[in-house]
Amino acid sequence: MKQIKIGLIGFGTVGAGLVETVQKNGDLIAKRSGILPVISKIADLDIVSDRGVTVADGVLGTDAMALIDSPDVDVVVELVGGITAARQFVTTALKQGKPVVTANKALLATYGDELFALARKHQTEIYFEASVGGGIPCIKALREGLVGNRIKEIYGILNGTCNYILTTMETDNTGFEVVLKAAQEAGYAEANPSMDVDGLDTAHKAALLASLVYGKWFTAADVDVQGIREVTLNDICYADSLGYRIKLLAAIKDIDGYIQLSVCPSLIPESSLLGHVNGVYNAVRVAGDVVGTTLYYGRGAGREATSSAVVADVVDIGLNLLGNCSNRLPAFPVFEEYKGLIASDEVVSRYYLRLQVADQPGTLAIISGILGKYQISIASVTQKEDQQLSVPIMILTHKAKVSAMRQAIEEISREKSIHAAPVVFRIEDLA
Amino acid sequence: MKQIKIGLIGFGTVGAGLVETVQKNGDLIAKRSGILPVISKIADLDIVSDRGVTVADGVLGTDAMALIDSPDVDVVVELVGGITAARQFVTTALKQGKPVVTANKALLATYGDELFALARKHQTEIYFEASVGGGIPCIKALREGLVGNRIKEIYGILNGTCNYILTTMETDNTGFEVVLKAAQEAGYAEANPSMDVDGLDTAHKAALLASLVYGKWFTAADVDVQGIREVTLNDICYADSLGYRIKLLAAIKDIDGYIQLSVCPSLIPESSLLGHVNGVYNAVRVAGDVVGTTLYYGRGAGREATSSAVVADVVDIGLNLLGNCSNRLPAFPVFEEYKGLIASDEVVSRYYLRLQVADQPGTLAIISGILGKYQISIASVTQKEDQQLSVPIMILTHKAKVSAMRQAIEEISREKSIHAAPVVFRIEDLA
Repeated sequence: MKQIKIGLIGFGTVGAGLVETVQKNGDLIAKRSGILPVISKIADLDIVSDRGVTVADGVLGTDAMALIDSPDVDVVVELVGGITAARQFVTTALKQGKPVVTANKALLATYGDELFALARKHQTEIYFEASVGGGIPCIKALREGLVGNRIKEIYGILNGTCNYILTTMETDNTGFEVVLKAAQEAGYAEANPSMDVDGLDTAHKAALLASLVYGKWFTAADVDVQGIREVTLNDICYADSLGYRIKLLAAIKDIDGYIQLSVCPSLIPESSLLGHVNGVYNAVRVAGDVVGTTLYYGRGAGREATSSAVVADVVDIGLNLLGNCSNRLPAFPVFEEYKGLIASDEVVSRYYLRLQVADQPGTLAIISGILGKYQISIASVTQKEDQQLSVPIMILTHKAKVSAMRQAIEEISREKSIHAAPVVFRIEDLA
Repeated sequence: MKQIKIGLIGFGTVGAGLVETVQKNGDLIAKRSGILPVISKIADLDIVSDRGVTVADGVLGTDAMALIDSPDVDVVVELVGGITAARQFVTTALKQGKPVVTANKALLATYGDELFALARKHQTEIYFEASVGGGIPCIKALREGLVGNRIKEIYGILNGTCNYILTTMETDNTGFEVVLKAAQEAGYAEANPSMDVDGLDTAHKAALLASLVYGKWFTAADVDVQGIREVTLNDICYADSLGYRIKLLAAIKDIDGYIQLSVCPSLIPESSLLGHVNGVYNAVRVAGDVVGTTLYYGRGAGREATSSAVVADVVDIGLNLLGNCSNRLPAFPVFEEYKGLIASDEVVSRYYLRLQVADQPGTLAIISGILGKYQISIASVTQKEDQQLSVPIMILTHKAKVSAMRQAIEEISREKSIHAAPVVFRIEDLA
């Protein structure tokens, strides 16, 4: 049995959760794995607040750099969040050959290339299970469990806040703004919710998953992103009436060797497993050429779920230290198993289109004429009866290129009978 | 980059699938992991049949013992099935210090204790991802991804044949016998389907999962087993009308430190994720004290799914060989993290009860009287209208001990107005 001494940088909610988990289940972990994780040092600017956990004297301090230097730290766990300081801490640790565990998807999606190169150079490692899917061991599944598969596609519900908002809009029959406000008050959404609801957090995670699978470090800039602010209760109800749920869906697809990376509100069949992933839960659906379709589900964020993933990473590193086999599993091997990214305009999809139009003869004919001009064929259309002068029209299309849909939307928007900017989501007919 | 030379014993459907996977994706696996798996030797009694894959001259032979001895074999993959010969092959390999990969749940559930002791003694290892959940990396999730969790409960749909039969009964509105026959003709069920439909295969897998989680080697004899032969189309339709699906469910629960191990037809909510696991797919739902509820889904058997899991195990072993860290992760550490098994009579559950009764006044009063005598309270009851003298009554109960239900059933069965042996399934109100 070997102690692995953790140096924890960042004593916030998740940091305190890690301390609690190690204290509660450390002995069991040691019995199972031979590795006893111990919280050796903690660094945080705030050494006063009560986190609901007790640590021994001398463990908590403010100096993260001294923590990294300490001979009493075998592995550095970075839980500060943000990019600038985190990058400095991780870089310093790696340069000293100290392995790092991080839950920081923004850091990895932005500087992963640089950090993994540094880890390789100094023969140490970065583990990052908690960065995607919270407590779900989906990074491990992709890197190890499915190592024998060429990955054909990944669909992910990767942001708990968005999924909570969309689910609650449906269950409580309430609009986006009201649910967002309630979520903020309940602590499910940040005061500034942009990272979540505008899709960037999901894009970071999608970039990470794509990188692992296709062997090139993608960043969020490679991902076509649309957030959930435009999703209305009407959209959700209409989708429901057609057997669909609306989810903020990350899609990573290998289409004849070219990679599609996108994050957008998507209609998925109510009968699918992903369609039943509700509330703050996340899921990753991975299709491999050998294994077929697999799916991984669990809590996508939060103190406990994140701790579970971080502890697993610490044990993995501990086993490597114990067995003198650091870098046993290449953290991020570059192999570029793809021909190129598909430009966002070239992506082919089915679409859900919502228009607010004048309730007057000929409007639908104009819209369908423009769609037809761009070779977009209509699968179904519903015009809601209303007492207003302005009525919503919902259209589901067959497959078409994004470029065609963008051009059609631009032309439709110029029509006088269109009263608001058209809204476009995607449809993914996954099983 | 290191070649790992596979000695494959058993060139049947799955064996040929492994050869195909290694040939197709070997280079990609090498790029990702640094391990190039190579089929070095194959042993099978039949060296004539066409398996649809080509192997080099000198690879295929009949002598499994010579294969194990060969210096050209780094890892022995046992895919013969059955217990006797497989045990001999695995034992011989381990005694030579050669690591073993197996998909053989019956072997492990029966002789796991002995085989893991042998692996420890000879400082080598056994990997067995394919033994539960086919291609789903659920063993890895339990051993590694959730290592920081005390596991509170596991529910599993672990037998593809049973799940295919139950799903098809519902979708095709057809009885058990007809669906079983069609499944046999389509190759989804064995000529002798007993291992599957009588629940023993699921019990083997449940014993394996429980062993990993609670640190004692359980066998199928420790599992309370009921198969699916008694499930009728009527049961499925009635359950459906109440919002339930019927699944052959493995339940592994830690109840105040005591362990419940059971496999039986169970009504689970139609709204749950497990309720949407259909056809030959499997799923394992694991609740940990830190991570909360997680779920792992995929194909539970078959040539490709099994190959995917076997290749992942081979790569894990290859990484250990490359890093000189065999036994990096203890294959099966004994830690007995539980107080004892709950005797099957002491298990507490809700029940679904189907009776065939005389259509005469007072019958329901007699039944509810007997249930009441054993403190079993009724949650709902339906008596179907029928033109027959004999009508079905379906009862859902609240929680009660198995012993109470058994006594009540025995007493009910003695009543003249009861026309057939009562049928009892369980209800699991999982989310």
